[in-house]
Amino acid sequence: MRIGVLGSGAMGAKLGTIFARAGHQVVFSYSRSDEKLKSLARRAKADARAGSPREAAGCDAVLLAVNWPQVDDVLHQAHDLAGKVLLTCAVPMNEDNTELVIGRTSSGAEELVKKTRGARVVSAFGTVPSEALYGVFRRRTHSPRPSLVYCGDDEAAKRVARGLIHDAGFDPVDVGPLRIARYTEPCALLVAQVAYEGGRPPEVAYRFERFPEEE
Amino acid sequence: MRIGVLGSGAMGAKLGTIFARAGHQVVFSYSRSDEKLKSLARRAKADARAGSPREAAGCDAVLLAVNWPQVDDVLHQAHDLAGKVLLTCAVPMNEDNTELVIGRTSSGAEELVKKTRGARVVSAFGTVPSEALYGVFRRRTHSPRPSLVYCGDDEAAKRVARGLIHDAGFDPVDVGPLRIARYTEPCALLVAQVAYEGGRPPEVAYRFERFPEEE
Repeated sequence: MRIGVLGSGAMGAKLGTIFARAGHQVVFSYSRSDEKLKSLARRAKADARAGSPREAAGCDAVLLAVNWPQVDDVLHQAHDLAGKVLLTCAVPMNEDNTELVIGRTSSGAEELVKKTRGARVVSAFGTVPSEALYGVFRRRTHSPRPSLVYCGDDEAAKRVARGLIHDAGFDPVDVGPLRIARYTEPCALLVAQVAYEGGRPPEVAYRFERFPEEE
Repeated sequence: MRIGVLGSGAMGAKLGTIFARAGHQVVFSYSRSDEKLKSLARRAKADARAGSPREAAGCDAVLLAVNWPQVDDVLHQAHDLAGKVLLTCAVPMNEDNTELVIGRTSSGAEELVKKTRGARVVSAFGTVPSEALYGVFRRRTHSPRPSLVYCGDDEAAKRVARGLIHDAGFDPVDVGPLRIARYTEPCALLVAQVAYEGGRPPEVAYRFERFPEEE
């Protein structure tokens, strides 16, 4: 599959590298420095290249991995995402990264559907910190895997997300329609608290487990 | 410790029973049926009794375990909770149980501080479904335990919560000040999606794990 990555911060860089190493064709895009994008593509040591946001948007699936205040600009540069499979890990935080600017009655993921005039949005990968990604991918043959929740309204787009979540070493957990991003986006911030505030290394993921009352 | 339970639904009934079996003195309160409270106390087969919300509120720690639309009534009946250690697992949902009535800019837990004129509120136990509680408690000697997040602004009250979370068989995870309930309350609904919407038994808990990049 051809995957376009919009955003070259820690999430975009690591997920793009992981998708390339899992056998996909990756286009890294949207950095102030073209050299950074080329370096990311080179260091992936797989089928990856630097491109424009518009080229990334032309791929089979697109990963939105920018800070929320950059969303309008990157969508403008991507030009047209209507009908595209758009995975988003962007949590709608303010400029200071201190609080959610959208929540309870909507979510960043739902707003993206409007902003793109109909991308097939799946919310995924936002609920783990970037620091956990390589560790999870490296241990992808170990069992049990950590969970990763995803939600969306388009079943075909969700199948793509499910496959990529599995490729990245996680156990995909379908949590329902896109409006559930109203819960997953705050959860991203809860996981960030666990990752960054506990005084321990931030490589945190989570796993759902079953605890029957009777054996 | 003496623990008062406000609310006799699944969460209050099970947590009260677990706290009694862990060696605490428990007062069950707030049911339309006094017989139900007496039956809960009997079936706990430990140091538990039925009482009024006011008696429950007089204990060393109080667990608020009612549906959100009952909060004002139960607080009125409890009379005075100012300065008390108040653990809450009440998620601020509407009457239909379909969406949060408080979120993003505040949380149910923060509103409780105002409503009680200064209870020492800790948000805890809301992030697991009641169906998981007995299974987790029964396996409390197994390792590793599932995680349970808690947050609050009063360190002494948090120590009480931490002890009770441990007594119930979980690994307590301090996620910071009470405002983090803005994230934990939506997470309760995410866990509920996993528990109730996946077509599998709802006895779901979660565990945070570390995935270092390098071994």
